[in-house]
Amino acid sequence: MDATLTDGVVRAGSGGRERFYDSRGYGRPVDAGAIELAPVEAAHLLYRGDLDAVIDDRDGARMGFRALLASAAVSETSFLVYKDLRDRGFYLSPAREGWAGDHDTGGDADFLVFPRGEGPWGESVAYRVLVASERATVPAATLGESVLAVVDEESEVTYFETGRPDLGGSSAIDLPEGVAGDLLSDRVFLWDPPASLYDRGFYGQRLDEQGEGTLQLSLLEAAYLARAGALDVEGGAAAVVDRGREVEGDRFDRRLTVYTALRERGIVPKTGFKFGADFRTYADVESIDDLGHSELLVRVLPGGHAFSPRDLALDVRLAHGVRKTMAFALVDGDDVTWLSVERLTP
Amino acid sequence: MDATLTDGVVRAGSGGRERFYDSRGYGRPVDAGAIELAPVEAAHLLYRGDLDAVIDDRDGARMGFRALLASAAVSETSFLVYKDLRDRGFYLSPAREGWAGDHDTGGDADFLVFPRGEGPWGESVAYRVLVASERATVPAATLGESVLAVVDEESEVTYFETGRPDLGGSSAIDLPEGVAGDLLSDRVFLWDPPASLYDRGFYGQRLDEQGEGTLQLSLLEAAYLARAGALDVEGGAAAVVDRGREVEGDRFDRRLTVYTALRERGIVPKTGFKFGADFRTYADVESIDDLGHSELLVRVLPGGHAFSPRDLALDVRLAHGVRKTMAFALVDGDDVTWLSVERLTP
Repeated sequence: MDATLTDGVVRAGSGGRERFYDSRGYGRPVDAGAIELAPVEAAHLLYRGDLDAVIDDRDGARMGFRALLASAAVSETSFLVYKDLRDRGFYLSPAREGWAGDHDTGGDADFLVFPRGEGPWGESVAYRVLVASERATVPAATLGESVLAVVDEESEVTYFETGRPDLGGSSAIDLPEGVAGDLLSDRVFLWDPPASLYDRGFYGQRLDEQGEGTLQLSLLEAAYLARAGALDVEGGAAAVVDRGREVEGDRFDRRLTVYTALRERGIVPKTGFKFGADFRTYADVESIDDLGHSELLVRVLPGGHAFSPRDLALDVRLAHGVRKTMAFALVDGDDVTWLSVERLTP
Repeated sequence: MDATLTDGVVRAGSGGRERFYDSRGYGRPVDAGAIELAPVEAAHLLYRGDLDAVIDDRDGARMGFRALLASAAVSETSFLVYKDLRDRGFYLSPAREGWAGDHDTGGDADFLVFPRGEGPWGESVAYRVLVASERATVPAATLGESVLAVVDEESEVTYFETGRPDLGGSSAIDLPEGVAGDLLSDRVFLWDPPASLYDRGFYGQRLDEQGEGTLQLSLLEAAYLARAGALDVEGGAAAVVDRGREVEGDRFDRRLTVYTALRERGIVPKTGFKFGADFRTYADVESIDDLGHSELLVRVLPGGHAFSPRDLALDVRLAHGVRKTMAFALVDGDDVTWLSVERLTP
């Protein structure tokens, strides 16, 4: 069977509906027995040998799979994702209004993928898939509801499920008042801190692991505690924040905003340095001797950030390898938007 | 016992040599029974209570541990690394000429660390340690012979062993001549390639995993094969390289240089996307059905690169988690310098 490409839509005539839409979920039905196909769907039917050719309405050129893929009508990246999802047993539709049954096609997605065994005529959508090449940049604002499908330079597809987690925990303590500390060049030393600060609040790090004496606070911990009135250093919280800005610039303010947001939700943030992240977090600290496993790795980013898919792959792979969830904290002024990203096998 | 700080050197008089140098490897002996200590060594002796005070020669001020650490004479970062290595049972000396017995103190290091049970008087050095704060940047050129000790913002020390690996493998095949391909927007399709290209050379990726037909090459693979005369595309190798530069800029040239260097050494580079790296590598590919484990993750960087310790921690941790070695390829024109970095527990 041949089909015709006109203005970016491929039309297959009599019998197309029955063969392609009704039985296998390609295209959308139009009138008696005919269907319209997106070019990527037509390319897949050509690849499978179910269509013989697509005729270009402008010049009558007869295109097989090779010619259609090389044309501007089909992006190879979209084709590779479309094919991969078909190979995995899914039916899917382009996320264009009127092309996916009655489903909402709004938001950031290229394809709506239906649960196995269902199609555009069904009631549910399994995934909203956004397609990107490894070399694209992906604005953080487009993520949170979709599955990001990245085609790498060797044509493999990696899927990332994105979400907007609602974080909370039970790790809050009553803070002491005005504990004395010395501001050094990149940390604060408390020479005689109350034990609860470390043992129950998990603030700081002992200088001597066996001892009960000196506690070292990071500049973030110190700034938070000084603002809360729990720490007394020369120059107050402002001096600690100034020092933080000296060593880290604006990034210090973003990190302090996120540190504070986590503490206010009852979650303990500790450094994520060993994992290359800003924080690892503990939602339910009872005592320092029974810390349990940290749940999240957090990377702090400016609100308008756009991801390089390779950086995303690095973070998500590392988090998965240490049984944690990767979360990005996108900071706009005092507002923090949370984005979780996990590897997905559809 | 008190000691005196003069011009950045702390001098402990009679009996100091026997107590501190002979038995525990602090400082350097000067004359009858006396020793000189670096301020970081004096800080450690104060911390342990082995010295009572250090007197500042300029103003007669009497400093305990807290005051010396807060002074400009000792960096807290150096102290934390010094203490950590002492806690692990090592003796160490400042890497200053004349301060570490007869050992060579040249190169990029802050401390020479001696094998357990040995000191500056011994014959060997276990590690040459370079100290950095998490927030410093570390020029790649300073690594390769030293152990990098990073103090994170919560005062924990992470050690990275760096080396200059000599890479080689046995994965070379005789290339075919002039195989026809189509250059698409971000890859090259070979519609009828000789089987050996994929099956034995591990070039490209099958479009249909079960089939023997179409092979997809990355732009890097295509550029390399076109330059070697094995691939025939419209516009030749130059067209492929131009396309690569369009999508990646200068980075494409650096990556092609490294891809070529690896292939010339008999190593197969494949994409490292899933690991957030440029390449994963196979040194001894016999056939595609028996690939074995890839040994390295490679990140390509410009020659003058300076590392953020956090990025380094991310790469090294990920590589370790997937049982590979992290290697950095530093590219200057056509020259590639190799740097390996692995986590170390001293």
